[in-house]
Amino acid sequence: EALLDDRKVMTKSSSVDLVTQTDQKVEQLIIQSVKEKFPTHRFIGEESVAAGEPCILTDDPTWIVDPIDGTTNFVHAGCRAVTWYSAVRSLLPQMEFGVVFSCLEDKMFTARRGSGAFCNGEPLQVSGQKDIQRSIIATEFGSNRDPEVVDKMFSSLRNVLCIPVHGMRGAGTAAINMCLVASGCVEAYYEIGMHVWDLAASSLIVSEAGGVLMDVEGGAADLMSRRIVAANNRTIAERIVKEIHPFAPPRDDAPPLQQ
Amino acid sequence: EALLDDRKVMTKSSSVDLVTQTDQKVEQLIIQSVKEKFPTHRFIGEESVAAGEPCILTDDPTWIVDPIDGTTNFVHAGCRAVTWYSAVRSLLPQMEFGVVFSCLEDKMFTARRGSGAFCNGEPLQVSGQKDIQRSIIATEFGSNRDPEVVDKMFSSLRNVLCIPVHGMRGAGTAAINMCLVASGCVEAYYEIGMHVWDLAASSLIVSEAGGVLMDVEGGAADLMSRRIVAANNRTIAERIVKEIHPFAPPRDDAPPLQQ
Repeated sequence: EALLDDRKVMTKSSSVDLVTQTDQKVEQLIIQSVKEKFPTHRFIGEESVAAGEPCILTDDPTWIVDPIDGTTNFVHAGCRAVTWYSAVRSLLPQMEFGVVFSCLEDKMFTARRGSGAFCNGEPLQVSGQKDIQRSIIATEFGSNRDPEVVDKMFSSLRNVLCIPVHGMRGAGTAAINMCLVASGCVEAYYEIGMHVWDLAASSLIVSEAGGVLMDVEGGAADLMSRRIVAANNRTIAERIVKEIHPFAPPRDDAPPLQQ
Repeated sequence: EALLDDRKVMTKSSSVDLVTQTDQKVEQLIIQSVKEKFPTHRFIGEESVAAGEPCILTDDPTWIVDPIDGTTNFVHAGCRAVTWYSAVRSLLPQMEFGVVFSCLEDKMFTARRGSGAFCNGEPLQVSGQKDIQRSIIATEFGSNRDPEVVDKMFSSLRNVLCIPVHGMRGAGTAAINMCLVASGCVEAYYEIGMHVWDLAASSLIVSEAGGVLMDVEGGAADLMSRRIVAANNRTIAERIVKEIHPFAPPRDDAPPLQQ
């Protein structure tokens, strides 16, 4: 109920990025209740990192939490995607489980390592499509409006569109776009600029649904690098990689800048 | 049930535009059953127009039907938007009612002139947002990959993105994007290139939810012109109009070209 009453919005680093009191409250709630049961577990969360806590993976089990991704969507009519991630790591960078909830569609996406991915309990399977020209690709524009970054985003977008692919989509959040890949509704999703807490849970959901994760330059995916290609198979992922104009935003696990 | 078994795909004018046998079958089914009750009513439908029938509004009541818009989405995992439109006109260009069904979300959007718009029976209301920088805007890339058209689409998209707006979305079909406007989930939707059967029903849904329709150059909306701005209010619509690089595809009611 707090979710619906509590829409006081304060701006974060730019007017494109909104944060609600609810977001911070829910993150604290999740962290507190896990800490009571597992006092040695660590946490990485959008709100705690914004508040100056470190964003590094150690050998301790770590929860990567983003209570309300797509805050923008949430503030807009209280809908679309309320998302949270829970990922416990045992061996780096091994995800144990992931949960994404889309409150607009009332869908709960879940995955546990080695046990498959599910939506409201029904098993998920990526699309079988291998022809890029019959594929739908999702991406987002993120919140960076620096002209050089926008140039690169548009250059990649145009390259991908004019392969030509069958169509483009943008659901509004990395997590939901990744769940669309896992569900077979789109063949692939790529983006540069989102954060580890936007991706952690849904990356396990994609893998467990049979999909592949890759860096935008084709190497192994690195969840701290703020770059991802998630696809139904390697053929589609590698075709998209060819069209992306890569760039490298500051890593999530980079030491914080002096303020 | 036919909807789920029947995915034989044949290509229409370009590989970007798919058509299923189901699409044609359902359109015939709708037209037949209306004709039995109202023998004088006329029809405009994507499949019948593709088959060479005229696309003009006369003084007779006319149904504008597109059984499966977002065929692309339908073929992909049988989901997203199965849409049909029913619009009876009494005085040109007056819509009497509109129905859009999204089978991915299991949502039925309905509107009757003067009686409001509804989703699964719940009344719809557009967003109250008047600040473009806090607005989410939806658009699509359509199926035309002619470089000049792509240039103009990208120029408009970049202008709108860098106003800056809060975010961009693309749900995959005009009808569903328009229903997102009506629901208050996005503030506006604009596109050049879709057809009257993609818009007719949902344009009434937007109006009845309190939204405004406008041409991309700011004049009155013309459903046959293949151009639309649909927004929560005039302020937002006019702000978007300023950023659109307009062009004029062949009208839906233009005489057919010699083939």
